[in-house]
Amino acid sequence: MPKPTKTAILVIGGAEDKVHGREILHTFFNRSGAADAVIAIVPSASREPLLIGDRYRHIFEDMGAKRLEIIDIRERSQAEDPKYMEFLEECTGVFLTGGDQLRLCGLLAETPIMERIRDRVQKGEVTLAGTSAGAAVMGHHMIGGGGSGESPNRSLVDMAMGLGIIPEVLVDQHFHNRNRMARLLSAIAIHPDRLGVGIDEDTCAMFEQDGWIQVMGKGTVTIVDAQDLSYTNQMDVGVTDPLSLHSLRLHILCHGDRYHLYQRHPLTPMTDEKSAG
Amino acid sequence: MPKPTKTAILVIGGAEDKVHGREILHTFFNRSGAADAVIAIVPSASREPLLIGDRYRHIFEDMGAKRLEIIDIRERSQAEDPKYMEFLEECTGVFLTGGDQLRLCGLLAETPIMERIRDRVQKGEVTLAGTSAGAAVMGHHMIGGGGSGESPNRSLVDMAMGLGIIPEVLVDQHFHNRNRMARLLSAIAIHPDRLGVGIDEDTCAMFEQDGWIQVMGKGTVTIVDAQDLSYTNQMDVGVTDPLSLHSLRLHILCHGDRYHLYQRHPLTPMTDEKSAG
Repeated sequence: MPKPTKTAILVIGGAEDKVHGREILHTFFNRSGAADAVIAIVPSASREPLLIGDRYRHIFEDMGAKRLEIIDIRERSQAEDPKYMEFLEECTGVFLTGGDQLRLCGLLAETPIMERIRDRVQKGEVTLAGTSAGAAVMGHHMIGGGGSGESPNRSLVDMAMGLGIIPEVLVDQHFHNRNRMARLLSAIAIHPDRLGVGIDEDTCAMFEQDGWIQVMGKGTVTIVDAQDLSYTNQMDVGVTDPLSLHSLRLHILCHGDRYHLYQRHPLTPMTDEKSAG
Repeated sequence: MPKPTKTAILVIGGAEDKVHGREILHTFFNRSGAADAVIAIVPSASREPLLIGDRYRHIFEDMGAKRLEIIDIRERSQAEDPKYMEFLEECTGVFLTGGDQLRLCGLLAETPIMERIRDRVQKGEVTLAGTSAGAAVMGHHMIGGGGSGESPNRSLVDMAMGLGIIPEVLVDQHFHNRNRMARLLSAIAIHPDRLGVGIDEDTCAMFEQDGWIQVMGKGTVTIVDAQDLSYTNQMDVGVTDPLSLHSLRLHILCHGDRYHLYQRHPLTPMTDEKSAG
């Protein structure tokens, strides 16, 4: 009897290793059931869905997945296709590729197929991964675009609705690589009730069912926690005026570090390793 | 009888307005005694000291300073020139221009003239301003250079010794404009006992004698406070490995905001305005 797979949600900062150790992709594969994995690849964020879909298909085939399908939705009417809906019931893993997060949400938000994916993920029946644009869509609110090289201000970030798979978070990806701290801070000023999660390239924040976020990969995961925010001028200033944010909590997490989504604190290595269970 | 001037240290993030409102430079001028101001301009950070010295000379002349001298030190032996030492005794304001902070410290650190400036500034007899490189040198430790576009790591920042005028702080300038959050975080990982102060262009952190830091100008002042740091891997990893920093406090401050250097908290507008005196 195979052990039931411990599912998770893997939020990947883009540019994950696809050639060498492929640690993050391998973790997704394992969490999807390894040799028993039935994986759906959703390349809808990309304007070259077949190309990018095939790339991931080869990777997971190579790892030994049992079955693989590319769910190639290019218009919303396809997002209730019975063929896809049926396949989804057998899936143990769903992978959202990179591309444009506004395109991905435009095609999939509130469609039967997306509702079903979210439902099965939240029940712990399916492991979900999203990279780059596929990571951006995880929250209720989503960063659709923005800039860098400025003081935090509301015009530095374009907000949109995400797919709401982990509603509590506000994700930014390619994070330090593309210098996105100011835009994440600008987003958090607008939505201080959400947890800012900035994920570097080839780095993954893996959300476990018990609320722990586990970090893996080459870079860092940056947590911006506005729970104790004592003041912001966000409501009172123009869209290009600089933003005040008093008393944020900031954590820079590396491979092996853990952070609790609901308790809002990191697990400190050595000292409280055991208490995490 | 003129009121005694309330001196301060103005740490300016570079590219301050020199043409229009000139608010920051005007504040320096006022804090140096306005029409009674006797100002020393120190352009030693620059490889074009006369050019940059003259630019500031014209600005402060135009504002109506009583006397102005350019302290044009180009080698360390000049940094005890009696002519400069004498002028310094009459000074009410000293202005450190931009350029290269390593050059500025190389020429001035631990020289009689610099010791005397620091002494008079710390006694509250002289107002000091430094912009860009002139801001970088304020702390005991100094960021000499570095990069961006990477996860925080030790190789992202080159540390050097500063002039130690405000030993508690670790300053970075042109801060959000040049995407320097990751390098300031890398510096703070190395020196978590110092307060990280990232200052945007045309923005000033004005350090008052009572410990309050007042923010003025167009951008933000970013405070990274590692006082409650619960964990860092800084001592255990290679120079290019990503850094963990758990439980930092982060404040983004705008024009009019205040932060207390020793109490380590911002003044929250409206609620505790009165308690600051």
